[in-house]
Amino acid sequence: MSYTLFFNPMSRALIASWAFAEAGVEPELAMVEWDHKPDALLAANPMGKLPTIIHHADFGDRVVSEASAICHYLSEMEAPELLPTPEEKADYFRWLFFAAGPVEAAVTNKAMGWEPEDAKQEMTSGFGSFERVVSTLEDWFAGHDFVCGDRFTMADVYVGAQVDWGINFGTMPARDSLQAYQSRLQARDAYKASLGSLPG
Amino acid sequence: MSYTLFFNPMSRALIASWAFAEAGVEPELAMVEWDHKPDALLAANPMGKLPTIIHHADFGDRVVSEASAICHYLSEMEAPELLPTPEEKADYFRWLFFAAGPVEAAVTNKAMGWEPEDAKQEMTSGFGSFERVVSTLEDWFAGHDFVCGDRFTMADVYVGAQVDWGINFGTMPARDSLQAYQSRLQARDAYKASLGSLPG
Repeated sequence: MSYTLFFNPMSRALIASWAFAEAGVEPELAMVEWDHKPDALLAANPMGKLPTIIHHADFGDRVVSEASAICHYLSEMEAPELLPTPEEKADYFRWLFFAAGPVEAAVTNKAMGWEPEDAKQEMTSGFGSFERVVSTLEDWFAGHDFVCGDRFTMADVYVGAQVDWGINFGTMPARDSLQAYQSRLQARDAYKASLGSLPG
Repeated sequence: MSYTLFFNPMSRALIASWAFAEAGVEPELAMVEWDHKPDALLAANPMGKLPTIIHHADFGDRVVSEASAICHYLSEMEAPELLPTPEEKADYFRWLFFAAGPVEAAVTNKAMGWEPEDAKQEMTSGFGSFERVVSTLEDWFAGHDFVCGDRFTMADVYVGAQVDWGINFGTMPARDSLQAYQSRLQARDAYKASLGSLPG
């Protein structure tokens, strides 16, 4: 097969699995136990983070890590119809990087009990406050069905996974517009197909 | 002009300024005081974060925030020669998102005095530990001149700014390969031109 996906079923690898399903590509699965990381994974990505993929391309093997990068890369390589049009590029990249940076940091830090204590720390943090990050997403999806407006793109896999996981694990408040966005995503065939695609 | 850049000289807007210089585009500058954010900025980006740009495109105005997204967007719209080739896409997106997510989080959290306390927090954090993030960058640039190997691309503006600022502000250790990378970036005409481009 053209791709290897290093995964553990209890990891962000589920995001990559959904992205593969949206792109219509079936990767070779390489299960990783947290305490026994295979040499092939560590050779590809010394940090040993999941998900990591190897693209066995005509021009040679290529490694991609970071769930956000994997989503976008699969779209670039396999699913151009899920890439943004020129008119959609601003929204697509704005929200994809917003989810990979401020949303990820705000949610993760809060889960670890760390929150900026004052205005100065909010400015340093790059995400302001958890509440501002969540409100920003809430406002966007109150006015737009998807990241780019009317149309689903690959950015919705990554942004959507942040919302979907956040609501499910209780790390993001289930605001109305976010729940409605989650429902639109969960109705997708590829979303449903990906849920059962990782053994374990 | 085709772009408005909301900036403050003491902010990540310097990254956007460098990206504009690399793309050969001169934006209209809109200076923002921290305690008096203009209505036009808040209308474009309710979080009021800097940098934020407005692209006054033929197809209408488009807003992009997040320094990482702005770099990539400018390349998409104005400087295709700084976009990756198909062979370079894996490295380009992998490291661009690595810098926007784990590097930003690790450096910022450390600056605020927050570091994961144990292996479980390291896994939750998404960046592991500060040391692992820095070592990962150090190893890459020990073997590659730029993000995509031999050739400078727009990803080097964002990844490079993280390294350049990190070393200059003492928030990232000045490892040999990172300093050598910094020197390659600082030698660029657009880097030098951007240093003087923001008033204030």
